[in-house]
Amino acid sequence: MTNDVKRVVLAYSGGLDTSVILKWLQQTYGCEVVTFTADLGQGEELEPARAKARLMGIKEEHIFIHDLREEFVKDYVYPMMRANALYEGLYLLGTSIARPLIAKRQIEIAKQVGADAVSHGATGKGNDQVRFELGYYALSPDIKVIAPWREWDLTSRTALIEFAEKHQIPVPKDKRGESPFSTDANLLHTSSEGKVLEDPWEEVPDYVYSRTVNPEDAPDQPEIITIDFERGDAVAINGEGLSPATLLAKLNDLGRTHGIGRLDLVENRFVGMKSRGMYETPGGTILHLAHRGIEQITLDRGAAHLKDELAPRYAELIYNGFWFSPEREMLQAAIDHSQEKVTGTVRLKLYKGGVHVIGRKSPYTLYSEKVVTFEDDAGAYDQRDAAGFIKLNALRLRLLGRRDGR
Amino acid sequence: MTNDVKRVVLAYSGGLDTSVILKWLQQTYGCEVVTFTADLGQGEELEPARAKARLMGIKEEHIFIHDLREEFVKDYVYPMMRANALYEGLYLLGTSIARPLIAKRQIEIAKQVGADAVSHGATGKGNDQVRFELGYYALSPDIKVIAPWREWDLTSRTALIEFAEKHQIPVPKDKRGESPFSTDANLLHTSSEGKVLEDPWEEVPDYVYSRTVNPEDAPDQPEIITIDFERGDAVAINGEGLSPATLLAKLNDLGRTHGIGRLDLVENRFVGMKSRGMYETPGGTILHLAHRGIEQITLDRGAAHLKDELAPRYAELIYNGFWFSPEREMLQAAIDHSQEKVTGTVRLKLYKGGVHVIGRKSPYTLYSEKVVTFEDDAGAYDQRDAAGFIKLNALRLRLLGRRDGR
Amino acid sequence: MTNDVKRVVLAYSGGLDTSVILKWLQQTYGCEVVTFTADLGQGEELEPARAKARLMGIKEEHIFIHDLREEFVKDYVYPMMRANALYEGLYLLGTSIARPLIAKRQIEIAKQVGADAVSHGATGKGNDQVRFELGYYALSPDIKVIAPWREWDLTSRTALIEFAEKHQIPVPKDKRGESPFSTDANLLHTSSEGKVLEDPWEEVPDYVYSRTVNPEDAPDQPEIITIDFERGDAVAINGEGLSPATLLAKLNDLGRTHGIGRLDLVENRFVGMKSRGMYETPGGTILHLAHRGIEQITLDRGAAHLKDELAPRYAELIYNGFWFSPEREMLQAAIDHSQEKVTGTVRLKLYKGGVHVIGRKSPYTLYSEKVVTFEDDAGAYDQRDAAGFIKLNALRLRLLGRRDGR
Amino acid sequence: MTNDVKRVVLAYSGGLDTSVILKWLQQTYGCEVVTFTADLGQGEELEPARAKARLMGIKEEHIFIHDLREEFVKDYVYPMMRANALYEGLYLLGTSIARPLIAKRQIEIAKQVGADAVSHGATGKGNDQVRFELGYYALSPDIKVIAPWREWDLTSRTALIEFAEKHQIPVPKDKRGESPFSTDANLLHTSSEGKVLEDPWEEVPDYVYSRTVNPEDAPDQPEIITIDFERGDAVAINGEGLSPATLLAKLNDLGRTHGIGRLDLVENRFVGMKSRGMYETPGGTILHLAHRGIEQITLDRGAAHLKDELAPRYAELIYNGFWFSPEREMLQAAIDHSQEKVTGTVRLKLYKGGVHVIGRKSPYTLYSEKVVTFEDDAGAYDQRDAAGFIKLNALRLRLLGRRDGR
Repeated sequence: MTNDVKRVVLAYSGGLDTSVILKWLQQTYGCEVVTFTADLGQGEELEPARAKARLMGIKEEHIFIHDLREEFVKDYVYPMMRANALYEGLYLLGTSIARPLIAKRQIEIAKQVGADAVSHGATGKGNDQVRFELGYYALSPDIKVIAPWREWDLTSRTALIEFAEKHQIPVPKDKRGESPFSTDANLLHTSSEGKVLEDPWEEVPDYVYSRTVNPEDAPDQPEIITIDFERGDAVAINGEGLSPATLLAKLNDLGRTHGIGRLDLVENRFVGMKSRGMYETPGGTILHLAHRGIEQITLDRGAAHLKDELAPRYAELIYNGFWFSPEREMLQAAIDHSQEKVTGTVRLKLYKGGVHVIGRKSPYTLYSEKVVTFEDDAGAYDQRDAAGFIKLNALRLRLLGRRDGR
Repeated sequence: MTNDVKRVVLAYSGGLDTSVILKWLQQTYGCEVVTFTADLGQGEELEPARAKARLMGIKEEHIFIHDLREEFVKDYVYPMMRANALYEGLYLLGTSIARPLIAKRQIEIAKQVGADAVSHGATGKGNDQVRFELGYYALSPDIKVIAPWREWDLTSRTALIEFAEKHQIPVPKDKRGESPFSTDANLLHTSSEGKVLEDPWEEVPDYVYSRTVNPEDAPDQPEIITIDFERGDAVAINGEGLSPATLLAKLNDLGRTHGIGRLDLVENRFVGMKSRGMYETPGGTILHLAHRGIEQITLDRGAAHLKDELAPRYAELIYNGFWFSPEREMLQAAIDHSQEKVTGTVRLKLYKGGVHVIGRKSPYTLYSEKVVTFEDDAGAYDQRDAAGFIKLNALRLRLLGRRDGR
Repeated sequence: MTNDVKRVVLAYSGGLDTSVILKWLQQTYGCEVVTFTADLGQGEELEPARAKARLMGIKEEHIFIHDLREEFVKDYVYPMMRANALYEGLYLLGTSIARPLIAKRQIEIAKQVGADAVSHGATGKGNDQVRFELGYYALSPDIKVIAPWREWDLTSRTALIEFAEKHQIPVPKDKRGESPFSTDANLLHTSSEGKVLEDPWEEVPDYVYSRTVNPEDAPDQPEIITIDFERGDAVAINGEGLSPATLLAKLNDLGRTHGIGRLDLVENRFVGMKSRGMYETPGGTILHLAHRGIEQITLDRGAAHLKDELAPRYAELIYNGFWFSPEREMLQAAIDHSQEKVTGTVRLKLYKGGVHVIGRKSPYTLYSEKVVTFEDDAGAYDQRDAAGFIKLNALRLRLLGRRDGR
Repeated sequence: MTNDVKRVVLAYSGGLDTSVILKWLQQTYGCEVVTFTADLGQGEELEPARAKARLMGIKEEHIFIHDLREEFVKDYVYPMMRANALYEGLYLLGTSIARPLIAKRQIEIAKQVGADAVSHGATGKGNDQVRFELGYYALSPDIKVIAPWREWDLTSRTALIEFAEKHQIPVPKDKRGESPFSTDANLLHTSSEGKVLEDPWEEVPDYVYSRTVNPEDAPDQPEIITIDFERGDAVAINGEGLSPATLLAKLNDLGRTHGIGRLDLVENRFVGMKSRGMYETPGGTILHLAHRGIEQITLDRGAAHLKDELAPRYAELIYNGFWFSPEREMLQAAIDHSQEKVTGTVRLKLYKGGVHVIGRKSPYTLYSEKVVTFEDDAGAYDQRDAAGFIKLNALRLRLLGRRDGR
């Protein structure tokens, strides 16, 4: 069975682990490896990955390095932000939302180079293996999937490093010992988990944070910014129009400076266990609250409440890896339908880890001072109508009360 | 019809508006007025209300002043906190949750004194009229409800003050002119709305806040606290056991000091319009996040996700005034069922307006370092199981992919 | 205020009640009346309505008689059928779905003739007043709405008939006395309620039924038919392509013959009370079950289950009159998204009141004999995968079990 | 690993397949086998199972035959009926609901006899393996589970029969060849699937049905019955009080006679594929509709609609095997809370495959003729209230309409 694989597209970061996987695939499956390295804004140089791939004998035409930042923000982060999605009430899904895009591009490359398999470096206990593989299978139902972490016997760090050294794979100094935690990063967030984070009673050590300053070290002066939205998507900061990825990068800078978007969470993985993670989502946190701000004046109550009820399910689908599923697309269709008039400007104050919406305006505002004013209005609302409204809403409760005599 | 009312129980604050109502009821309905003043922790002296009621001719045995603080927190705030209820994603429902208790006590007093009517001072455009009256009708289906603001012609402040002066009702200096905003307060929160808050693009002026310091003026040093929970309810701060109301008061102090719990919101009222409010929920904000923290390690995923899906509906029911409804009680039964093991301790950092969960522990924790550890475990989890898990979760997507060939 | 109305568009059936309303509007409001009579397939001649309107002095160009049958089925009934909507588990919403279309056309006519008001003949206790008026207001926010049954003093049948006679409005013999029940009919259904139906313990008398034979009198031989669907909509019966209205009419004939679609229901009205109704939905009942049949093989589980969860809410919105609401449209967007491949053929057996799906096939079927077969398959499903699938699904339950020791 | 098992409790029917499993367990695991045979009303003699177990060397004290019929109906079927649960809109979950009880009793026996493993005869492609094993793991997290169909190499019927013959296991004549379909039966239903049912376009052959007469052969006279409910559970038929299992058996007789409860369904299995099944649920179908009937007059709208929205999720949980999960229990708590006054009597007409509710009454009815009557009422409902009710419900739609100008 092992011999069946002829060409495999590997999601390749250029780091130690995926380099070991690359070599292991060549050895174990005797197959050609095609490397795919995606720039999702993780903030690392990608060219070293090219050099390393060459070194391990990958053909020039089989080394793919793609800048996916704009596609990532525009087609994945933004649709998710329209939904106000939070997993378990708090988590902005920074890792989850990147996986389907990587999977999609891997499959596209596989089709392009005629590969019959794909492979990834996610471990056998996490959610990412599920997200990658559900993406692969949805887009290419009969593709062969190789998940080395579930197959090989390099199950300790020592074994891994031995394998690397045996095969002339360079091992960076900081990877020699056990890493105190592991991370994943992209334009939306950085996540950290493992080792030093494993006791959920212990505070996350300061050195784990990499994307934000400690709120205590943030400026003593708040900063006021505006974000413009069009049809639910952010399009400008302080009046300056920006592409999705540029805009998110700019918000990340602002968030970093003000210590925004840190989250210490114990969450429920799809594979059935609880894990403790630390997330930094500086720009995404600002975006999430700003989007709620603009929706407050542009979204009708019926639409807003339906969105709120659908959001936990939508978030769960993304977390569990079902981006390419009919039900996620159905929910997206409903959500997107609601965003047509979610256009306008939100003012926010950033201060010491906090994001505070302090103003919002829109050409499509549904907020009306006239209607809400206490003592004078233009006839839209007759206070006496409230009596009938209450009476009929109360009717069933009155009939119940008569019966049950509480 | 007006003459039908013989005795009415009025929710009486002792302030100008409800004093005018008291007099107006006596005049218009020619009925006896029974006053009910509730201490919900609004932070005002209540004895002046007694004096004022006497002055307006209310019989001693018809003046009711009840301290409802413990009942309020224990039987209303706490059950709601178990649900992690947020209206429109952000609002902790501080006003909404107090109304059913006032209504309930009013009805109890009405039964005690043989009153045939109840009355309140809520205006004809707000949610509170609905909350009061749905409560009345649910608990006493055939009670007569008098809502002066929907009936009388004192529709301007000037008219109201003239009426007051004509009837020797003292008018405090600060009530002579138009108030720049109106407020409601109880142990859980203070809300402000109207006038200076009516343009949602304008920042809320600093003088509107009364329960919290400006985060910029909060201490430069964070403060670490612990909260103990038992079966979903907070029972101790920093190890000191406290009754529900005492505990919430203590959290309010902490929140006030650190500028916690301010919310500037444009929300959708049940009566159909949008309004802009400013809320200060210092202790409640801490409690809400702490409860999420303890649930993270004690609640199973299935329970947690079901709660997250039910919470928006539950919050909407409370906001709309349906506390005493079968569907709110059904949801409460489900929520309460989930809280049996939500026991343990949460550590929080309070700093400059922010509340950060930094640790949680529990004798009933479902978090297991062993299970989650990457390289060694006690056999609870076999990484190879993940392959089958993914394969079967993918099956329907593969069948779809074969059909639809994305 | 009364004098403000210059021209009103009345939903006019030509029957006694709306003729009285016509006259009453002329008298009370001194306004011009424009009549609108819709053919929704209720099975009545519409030309008499024209004659009657003329007789009561309506200008020729102010008499509108429109055949809306195709629009009704195509744009209202079919979208609703895609949702499998059932109110309170059983009711196919035949009356509810017609009201928004009538309201929409009334508003269009009002704009065309420059009318400033609309009026309808629905009573003050039912749902239809809500459905009409929510439609009016959604489509023409500042229109004046006149609901005579809530305004006038013709509150008894006697008073109504006296008024009619006084104004030379012909009173049909069968309308002289109290009618034993009232009905509403259109292409989708006939509903009956009131009087003889008011005791929910008493069986509905046979003479109430008008659209279906008694199952006991239906043919002793079952009839087999096929229905073809395209993208969720029925397009052919027994292979013969038919327009939506023609197709539904044909199914009505089949349903009538076989006694299909009778429903005796006590339901909860939006206005707060319970009422007992009898519905006959012959063709709609067949359509509903056939649609479920074709979805069974063409819809993915994720889509199907999401639809099932959204359907009660969707049905409630239609029942309550919120067809023209953002939330109904959002749900429709989600539902319609799911229907792209709901194409194929369903075989049904009709017999003595029953509809039985006995076969379904589709070019887009997701059902695969190969995959489901017990003893041989093409590698899509490895039974050993089930072990991992179960293990990971069980993990959280095992961790719970260890903690709680049931 | 195989040698680790010392004693295993097998869910043993006494049939060919589980007899082969018994022997295979003895051989492969070299362990003691404890047999557990449950009477769930499947209508088979159980004593032959005892004889067969003895024959295969099972110790007398290791043969367990339990009559679980009353427990099954009272604690599993009835709670589910309270929920009006239907999987995928149609299926009454007859197989799904029996599995958790069998699993529970197996675990109890395992504890009693000190067994370290449990085993079942469900195949590797179906739902039942999941239901059994989730039950085992929830109730005994560290139990060893043996699923022979996923482990052994007896993957063809021929191999199975050879194994049986080799080990002197009697092979009934009708088991020699391929069975044209397979069945599962208990007091609630009989299900059939496989082989002759595998083409979903082909009608289910008549010989597959075993629990109901063909509607065409049912009596030409309808039969009228009454069912009494107390707190949501059926307690009497035609006034005669019956225990849960006796009552369901009686309804099964009635349903059989009148050809009630046949369902031809293509459903989505939890393991990811579609399958076609035929179900006969004679008594359950009557019970389901009768329960809806009594709820119609005794359940408040808020409770009823919440139940309708929760029911698909609840049904899915049972179908997928999550009976012993916190979320199923939470939903049950909500549902049970609603049933306190679901007491009364329903009249039904049974005829040629149809069940028709024709009357319902209750001491706790919420239906009020007075309130619903058109022309006269006792003041509970003022028609003029409807104007205000509609106006405020319309307000947000009017504001939307002004903005969007449809």
